[in-house]
Amino acid sequence: MKQPIGVIDSGVGGLTVARELMRQLPKETFLYLGDTKRCPYGPRSEEEVRAFTWQMVNFLLEKNIKMLVIACNTATAYTLTELQETLNIPVIGVIEPGARAAIKFSRNKRIGVIGTEGTIESKAYPNALVVIDQNIRVNGLACPPFVPMVEDGILSGPKAEGIVSNTLRPLKEMNHIDTLILGCTHYPLIKDLVQNEMGNHIQVISSGEETAREASLILAYHKLLEKGNASPVHEFYTTGDIEKFRLVANSWFEEPVQILKSVRIEHVPSSAY
Amino acid sequence: MKQPIGVIDSGVGGLTVARELMRQLPKETFLYLGDTKRCPYGPRSEEEVRAFTWQMVNFLLEKNIKMLVIACNTATAYTLTELQETLNIPVIGVIEPGARAAIKFSRNKRIGVIGTEGTIESKAYPNALVVIDQNIRVNGLACPPFVPMVEDGILSGPKAEGIVSNTLRPLKEMNHIDTLILGCTHYPLIKDLVQNEMGNHIQVISSGEETAREASLILAYHKLLEKGNASPVHEFYTTGDIEKFRLVANSWFEEPVQILKSVRIEHVPSSAY
Repeated sequence: MKQPIGVIDSGVGGLTVARELMRQLPKETFLYLGDTKRCPYGPRSEEEVRAFTWQMVNFLLEKNIKMLVIACNTATAYTLTELQETLNIPVIGVIEPGARAAIKFSRNKRIGVIGTEGTIESKAYPNALVVIDQNIRVNGLACPPFVPMVEDGILSGPKAEGIVSNTLRPLKEMNHIDTLILGCTHYPLIKDLVQNEMGNHIQVISSGEETAREASLILAYHKLLEKGNASPVHEFYTTGDIEKFRLVANSWFEEPVQILKSVRIEHVPSSAY
Repeated sequence: MKQPIGVIDSGVGGLTVARELMRQLPKETFLYLGDTKRCPYGPRSEEEVRAFTWQMVNFLLEKNIKMLVIACNTATAYTLTELQETLNIPVIGVIEPGARAAIKFSRNKRIGVIGTEGTIESKAYPNALVVIDQNIRVNGLACPPFVPMVEDGILSGPKAEGIVSNTLRPLKEMNHIDTLILGCTHYPLIKDLVQNEMGNHIQVISSGEETAREASLILAYHKLLEKGNASPVHEFYTTGDIEKFRLVANSWFEEPVQILKSVRIEHVPSSAY
């Protein structure tokens, strides 16, 4: 199936999901659209998020995508069901894959979730977990310092370690969970810091990795996998500043993934669709 | 959706898959049918395996199952595509879930697979891996002593350690893989032995765990998840001796899973369907 897979996000966070999709599905071509101009979606109303998401979806549908990945927690919470029911291509989000992976890993049914304030307040992860197993106990913790820290490129060193340590303290003090979901697409960039802080007895789950793995299943299930030995050329679109986007993408897609050499980045004004 | 999920296997091995399904999907009801009388399927012709599998499937279809899990490597290899194309319920097998999980975990793209001689010779796992990523290198190793060892209840202690150590030596000596798929449904019962022998730097993947996780996704995707706070009563059927089956099931489903108290086991003659 020589058709691309669409990936949408409110900004750059979804690049960690795109990176995992490209790693786990190396024959597939991806079109990424980040609405950096109107980011973040978290504080916006449901109506606004739904409208912006539909604009992005329509932009990618015109490019004949065979599947859509909503690589944004907020957009997933507000639009996944609607998009699944309306579009005639498979649609997956970033919340349920992390939830299912946590259920697989957890032995004591006590699962932690960290994310933005919006994601934690929405209870999207607890809801996704409890619908499958009502005996699961979820400890959610909003970590407001993490997104600005990651966007400032502070990914290691004493300052980053201090922020992570202070922020995660309430979760460590409860000390009951055996599994922790990184419920924000920025967090995989500080996964090692979180793992070190929480300890090796805690299974840390990256929603991006799990979303890519489920995308692989859904493609196979619908017989949509690219079969040839393709060398895909991915396309990235941003509604904001193209140089800023390139800078983040380049620093996030560093070795050993190194796929940006085959990527084209284009600016698309948010008013254009 | 108050309908059960069907699980079929050539014998008792699929119980490890059923155990994981029940753990990860605690609201769901499972019907397990093990064709112990005609086990193992490995040495049988494709025609025979297909015929036996269809007989099992028809038995469960009469019981109005909403999904079918083929918890048997041989039956998956020969019948998965045909069943997916013919039945109007979702059908999943045990090979692809392990393959997709391995792709997620592996960083060096060198993946080991251990299984019965039939599974290794069939190249089912290498095929499932390479169709997604042609750069993956697969080292397969048949481990004939493992199934009799597990069925004899030798799951720990010096004798078990010796057998595991000797059998895995060729794989250890190559020493390149970073991920190992347990490509036989009996092997999860000796997962800790395999992990100890291979070392903690190797990610050991249990196909049963991964199959259960993908079953969870497919149920959700088709809106077939049981929503109520059900206390399901599972039903197990065997074509062979019911007491032997109960003995194995009881020893395999020990704490902390302990679900057999809610299970009914019935004999069903293989000629009856």
